[in-house]
Amino acid sequence: MTDTRQAVLAALADGPVTGPTLADRLGVSRAAVWKHVEALRDEGFGVESTEDGYELTAIPEYGADAVAFGLDASFDVEYHDTVGSTNDRARELATDGRENVVVLADRQVGGRGRRDRAWESPSGGIWLSAVLRPDIPPARAPLLTLAMAVAVTDAAREHGVDATIKWPNDVLVSNASEGTPDASSGDSLVSNANEGTSEDSGGRKLSGILTEMEGESGRVSWVVVGVGVNANVDPGDLYEGATSLRSEAGRVDRRVFVQRVLERFDELRDDFDGVLPAWRERTSTLGRRVRVHLPDGDLVGRAVDVTETGALVVDTGEERRVVHAGDCEHLRPV
Amino acid sequence: MTDTRQAVLAALADGPVTGPTLADRLGVSRAAVWKHVEALRDEGFGVESTEDGYELTAIPEYGADAVAFGLDASFDVEYHDTVGSTNDRARELATDGRENVVVLADRQVGGRGRRDRAWESPSGGIWLSAVLRPDIPPARAPLLTLAMAVAVTDAAREHGVDATIKWPNDVLVSNASEGTPDASSGDSLVSNANEGTSEDSGGRKLSGILTEMEGESGRVSWVVVGVGVNANVDPGDLYEGATSLRSEAGRVDRRVFVQRVLERFDELRDDFDGVLPAWRERTSTLGRRVRVHLPDGDLVGRAVDVTETGALVVDTGEERRVVHAGDCEHLRPV
Repeated sequence: MTDTRQAVLAALADGPVTGPTLADRLGVSRAAVWKHVEALRDEGFGVESTEDGYELTAIPEYGADAVAFGLDASFDVEYHDTVGSTNDRARELATDGRENVVVLADRQVGGRGRRDRAWESPSGGIWLSAVLRPDIPPARAPLLTLAMAVAVTDAAREHGVDATIKWPNDVLVSNASEGTPDASSGDSLVSNANEGTSEDSGGRKLSGILTEMEGESGRVSWVVVGVGVNANVDPGDLYEGATSLRSEAGRVDRRVFVQRVLERFDELRDDFDGVLPAWRERTSTLGRRVRVHLPDGDLVGRAVDVTETGALVVDTGEERRVVHAGDCEHLRPV
Repeated sequence: MTDTRQAVLAALADGPVTGPTLADRLGVSRAAVWKHVEALRDEGFGVESTEDGYELTAIPEYGADAVAFGLDASFDVEYHDTVGSTNDRARELATDGRENVVVLADRQVGGRGRRDRAWESPSGGIWLSAVLRPDIPPARAPLLTLAMAVAVTDAAREHGVDATIKWPNDVLVSNASEGTPDASSGDSLVSNANEGTSEDSGGRKLSGILTEMEGESGRVSWVVVGVGVNANVDPGDLYEGATSLRSEAGRVDRRVFVQRVLERFDELRDDFDGVLPAWRERTSTLGRRVRVHLPDGDLVGRAVDVTETGALVVDTGEERRVVHAGDCEHLRPV
């Protein structure tokens, strides 16, 4: 993707335009215009030659130029049909000093989740990692995870999917048999009969996030926020308890979905104080009984808050424990 | 340094012992014993051949075998006469998967402080970086910085130096003209006439710490805690406001000093909940008026607490601000 190619695209989007006019307007040769048009066609853009000049007739559903086209967020996009892991590629870019780059792939063959778990990433999904260099301490980096969870949730909701966030970083689609607890009225939840009776009332997993970082104890050097969204994939190709956008709401235009995610994420990182309130509004964890798997055993209690560093506060009835990391399971109310 | 060499040293330390006896006891050849004895002599150990056998007559003041000899802490030691930066070398070891290794140098030619500042590291100092792989989130890693500050402070005090900790990571020697505020009686400090009248009442800097890390937002992969102690060096070779162990208390045996630091640090990392209380007892920041330099301007107020993630709480009179990182200056009371 080049700036000139994006300029060619933008001009085509305004209506048919002849090659000579385009060349004049962009200050490049006619041969250069022709090369960019050919490259766009190779990427799947429909560019027809009419008597009025070039005409844009189709935009591909995914890819670097497609996502960058009309994107209202300050990210460069690098696209791979197949990549080992977008996070690994993003870490390379981060180590090279890059920032505000998004690595995007159709398929990962070595996708990673938290704690070095494998992450199923078949073709048709959205596998995306953003390289950031924010001036924050590592303690605040989990807020970027929460911001990405908010961004994915909002994009899913725009597509008609009833998504909520499970602490810290999973986007779930509620099981039809149960309501979503309202965090703002937490205390009444325990007796809310609408919450269903399923023992595992966690919902189906649409998306997960893996945030990695390097830095000093007072300041990160870089942060890579990786997100996997099960988009146009068959949940049967994933893992137990997974769902996908396609199975919840039909096939999506990944270009539009990624743009909404990046634009919302861009807003949130510019309004860091707004991340926690936005997250609290969208989570299905607060107010719930949860089981958190910790190195020294399971912790069961009611999730009552998140701290300003993104840690979960669990009230066991005897004490309040602050949990920085761990797998969290939503339980049905007692 | 090898385990066998440490076993040879331990045997010598128990009194004179003949080569054949040593070989038998350690299950190695007499030639191997002789090779280890020669290697120890090369490192500066005094090993004399008497009629009762080999006799240990001198231990060098610094070096890998010297520091490992009698060390009661679970660290391997790697020593360099000259190194670029012990933190850089420790990061290499961390990336290779190592843990519980200490990189030690007599001199750094590319020593680094926080925020990529240069760190003067002439021969005679203690330049040390520990490679750790604790199961903690990045938010808790600053506690390792605080633990190292406590360890250095205690070692300095054992050597008769009146050391205190300035948030977050500097070990200072109080200026003679002022008392040290007692954090346990914070509220009375503002009117404590013993605090002196120097505008910059921060004391002279003996040591600084640079903690670096890599990991996920919920779990670090590795942490490198680097510490520089101005030991047997001339403060005139350092920077304005620096002091050294030599100028405060005379030349020190760096071997003993490093052992005390590593042993205390080892204790504290095994008792993570004890770090903050120990730090609070040794800091000269709490209860003080401070100026903290932040990206969006200076913050002036009274330092009232540290959080469980090592952040400083500053009471400006109008609000309480939580500061994760920034240069902190001690001010005289108003």
